[in-house]
Amino acid sequence: MPIFAADDLRAMTGQVFEAAGFSTEKANLIARLMVESNLVGHDSHGVRHIPIYVSRIRDGLISPDAEPRIVTETPTTALVDGGGTLGHVAATFGLELAIQKARQHQVGAVAVHNEEHVGRVGGYPEMAARAGMVGITLCNAQGRGISIAPHGGTSRRMGANPFTAAFPNPKGDPILLDMSTSAVAINKVRQAKDRQTSLPDGAILNPKGESSTDPDDFLKQGGAALPLGGLLYGHKGFGLAVIIDLFCGLLGGSGTALHQHETRLNNGTFHIVIDPESFISSEAYAEQLAAYTDYIHASPTLPKRPSVQLPGEFEADNRARRTADGIAVEDPVWRNIVETLGRLNVPAPQPIG
Amino acid sequence: MPIFAADDLRAMTGQVFEAAGFSTEKANLIARLMVESNLVGHDSHGVRHIPIYVSRIRDGLISPDAEPRIVTETPTTALVDGGGTLGHVAATFGLELAIQKARQHQVGAVAVHNEEHVGRVGGYPEMAARAGMVGITLCNAQGRGISIAPHGGTSRRMGANPFTAAFPNPKGDPILLDMSTSAVAINKVRQAKDRQTSLPDGAILNPKGESSTDPDDFLKQGGAALPLGGLLYGHKGFGLAVIIDLFCGLLGGSGTALHQHETRLNNGTFHIVIDPESFISSEAYAEQLAAYTDYIHASPTLPKRPSVQLPGEFEADNRARRTADGIAVEDPVWRNIVETLGRLNVPAPQPIG
Repeated sequence: MPIFAADDLRAMTGQVFEAAGFSTEKANLIARLMVESNLVGHDSHGVRHIPIYVSRIRDGLISPDAEPRIVTETPTTALVDGGGTLGHVAATFGLELAIQKARQHQVGAVAVHNEEHVGRVGGYPEMAARAGMVGITLCNAQGRGISIAPHGGTSRRMGANPFTAAFPNPKGDPILLDMSTSAVAINKVRQAKDRQTSLPDGAILNPKGESSTDPDDFLKQGGAALPLGGLLYGHKGFGLAVIIDLFCGLLGGSGTALHQHETRLNNGTFHIVIDPESFISSEAYAEQLAAYTDYIHASPTLPKRPSVQLPGEFEADNRARRTADGIAVEDPVWRNIVETLGRLNVPAPQPIG
Repeated sequence: MPIFAADDLRAMTGQVFEAAGFSTEKANLIARLMVESNLVGHDSHGVRHIPIYVSRIRDGLISPDAEPRIVTETPTTALVDGGGTLGHVAATFGLELAIQKARQHQVGAVAVHNEEHVGRVGGYPEMAARAGMVGITLCNAQGRGISIAPHGGTSRRMGANPFTAAFPNPKGDPILLDMSTSAVAINKVRQAKDRQTSLPDGAILNPKGESSTDPDDFLKQGGAALPLGGLLYGHKGFGLAVIIDLFCGLLGGSGTALHQHETRLNNGTFHIVIDPESFISSEAYAEQLAAYTDYIHASPTLPKRPSVQLPGEFEADNRARRTADGIAVEDPVWRNIVETLGRLNVPAPQPIG
């Protein structure tokens, strides 16, 4: 499979979304966030989505020229209507507004609705952390995003509603948690299918509500994925998913899991941004976080496990490696991208390997 | 085992803590929160702690006359020093301050450090929800609270740092999530030992870091409990525990897991309170939440499972039942309480069954 320099993929992606109707600034933002997903190792949210988003723009499901707008606002809160644009644009608008509010009033809470796929949710609190803020971003989904059974239930009822949060790290990349509230990422179910392997117990149910290890029971038969915690402790993952659904869908107006958007993938995001300096000096923060990092890294590990990682280190390691070595794009994914490039008259970059 | 009316247990508990040195008001607050834990079915955080707290007061580990005080404050944030009092008093002080800030500025973020055991953490966002607010309360622990292995690690390194959140429910008890970030509650490990049963896989490790089902591997041998998600998906529970540790221990100044309080159980709490009316009208909120509740309840269930419950319904059901039928207190627990009552000259209530 071809390997590309991140800069080249970013330039290409920006040109694609500009050609598809976004302003240069918005197209570059989308490109930055999408290629960042590949860089940090979450290819599931990266450039593989280019053909999908472009076809949705063509079908009128994503409005490239819509401007997110503030529906209601207080000094510390805002409700934002994304106008049906791509989530990358709308969620970033909301996050930047929350940062601005936290700069002025120490805390900002901003909800965004009416936005298509937001991509890698962890990218938003990471932006807050890189701006020196502590960020939490919650995300829900309806319609095609509904894939999880409630704890004790047998059928799809909830999104895999991710919980993400980040803390600035003066000595490196942010501490970054980016987790779905399902046991297994839906993408891993597809991966198991592609690789013809079976799933571990406690990941999915077949349509009868029985535990299954066959990816097709989820992908073809309409079974449900289990919440984080599986059959025994799934009340935790399910409970988190409900709370996130209420933040995004109820407070934020994106609609909870019960709302069906059959034609469109619809996300809702809720950002909470807090200025750490209203609690602790930046010197004490840096010193204590460094000691904490050392403490966690010094943990004895399971046999054959590398050292314990803090949340976000998986992503940071990938970013360093892929920035140096390039980003490999799987052949079928690249063929789809090339087809889209051709249609939009955007030149394909040269692979570096 | 004897059964008591909740009112009687509450009056008794208030008298105990007043006799132990708390003001009447604080003693009644502690009594309300402790008996509420029994009412909602979390006996692990209820009156069984009376003898423990009283002995810690005697040993100078809990200061009954300390007043929580605001160390630094902005209109939307505050850092509170609990003064070494019982967490029930200090965490409630912080929560009420956060509610007051949210009333005035839509959002309040308040951290509390230097407090002993806070009891059932879910009781705090529940108070926020009953005041019409959305509440999140995070809680960390150090010293004796350290019991969880990091994902991929073999030894105790983290507290079971609970994540709790609540939404007001105009038609009933709040939607309330109260979950530890460990796979299994530590209390359930003790319960398994008491009942001479074994634990499910994925709950604890023995001291060599091997998966174990023997409660003694945790209780006697010094093994570690696994984070939520177990051996496969434990990066999620561990990641949540880290984020909570950073909110409470780093921002809030209670000290992260690396800080050892050998002599004292030390909690830190971080409250985030948001006024839902800055996002949605109370009429729309009530209507949509009712529809959501119906949608979740209508989920088909696993064989032999009752209907799917929203987070907080377990607690609400117990509260209704135990308010009517009384609270059973296990014999050894009651014997310990009676001994404490005798020492403080507080009369024991009459059992109702």
